[in-house]
Amino acid sequence: MTTNFEDGNLVLRLWYASHRTRALLKMCEDQIYGEYNLTMEQYAVLAAIKHIGGTARPTDIARWLGRSTNAVSMIVDRMVKAGLVRRVGDRSDRRVVNVSITSKAENALKPAIRAGWEFIQKITSPLSNEDKHTFVRLHDTLRYEIFKYLNPGANVEEMARNDDESHANLMERLIQYALPSTPEAKRQDGEK
Amino acid sequence: MTTNFEDGNLVLRLWYASHRTRALLKMCEDQIYGEYNLTMEQYAVLAAIKHIGGTARPTDIARWLGRSTNAVSMIVDRMVKAGLVRRVGDRSDRRVVNVSITSKAENALKPAIRAGWEFIQKITSPLSNEDKHTFVRLHDTLRYEIFKYLNPGANVEEMARNDDESHANLMERLIQYALPSTPEAKRQDGEK
Repeated sequence: MTTNFEDGNLVLRLWYASHRTRALLKMCEDQIYGEYNLTMEQYAVLAAIKHIGGTARPTDIARWLGRSTNAVSMIVDRMVKAGLVRRVGDRSDRRVVNVSITSKAENALKPAIRAGWEFIQKITSPLSNEDKHTFVRLHDTLRYEIFKYLNPGANVEEMARNDDESHANLMERLIQYALPSTPEAKRQDGEK
Repeated sequence: MTTNFEDGNLVLRLWYASHRTRALLKMCEDQIYGEYNLTMEQYAVLAAIKHIGGTARPTDIARWLGRSTNAVSMIVDRMVKAGLVRRVGDRSDRRVVNVSITSKAENALKPAIRAGWEFIQKITSPLSNEDKHTFVRLHDTLRYEIFKYLNPGANVEEMARNDDESHANLMERLIQYALPSTPEAKRQDGEK
């Protein structure tokens, strides 16, 4: 039954499904965060700073986002002008300039995180719990392969595990930060 | 067994898996296309023009990419300077300026498509055929929900079907364009 043609065609469908879903998700997220006058990029920078602790070095933000420090500095420049972040000196090292979130950004970030969270709950609602577990498992497999691709010869197992733990933790903290007063968030806090 | 906490946590894991995979795929694609001196954006514009027929109106490119015509015009400006596209007058309508691909861009696009195709085959190789089918099905469900979200009240069924057909077709054509002389591509052509 299974010919090479069919195999290739199935990978093509998978590639397309992944690409198109990514493009559509980006459109949704641009729209959702745009309502709070944040671009996806700005949202990601604020989320990273928030996760690092409210104040962060540009190099640490860059590491979190998988971008160059130069690229992050350019985004930060525009965000300073927009009043979303400010540059502050480091207490322990005079050469370092940290980036901290303004109250204007806090006021936009919280409802933006909530809106993003509502959106993802809405679009995943037709999936059964089993489907959701499968979705996570398939993506874990892909991410492991991507890690091997990006880091040939490295100890990919440990790298993937650390990446998973730190990033899953980021998402969880963001939700808890944005939804501090809901019963669900309290339960999540209590479960730790 | 299943509490609200666990449900919320599962959606959070799914959201994270989706986000993180997207970020990692973007890193890979930037790296892959970068080897042919193309950014992801330029690659997408060239692929859209190629699919439309080698010459395309900026509004059509914008529609394909889900971007504004303004955004596409700015990207095209830079691509003209980089020698990847040129602006040509429309034969039937003097007011319209079309965008066409240069031979320099053709020479970069073909190996870039091949490299992208090799990459996706590599990272999906640990998935069984059943896994791949499941991956496509889960993404189809998500995309249908995203369509409902982006187009409240519209005839989403037809919209999603048309979107699927036209975009799946784009990917297939691109592969055939880039791999015209392989046995697999010939088989795919023959199957039509």
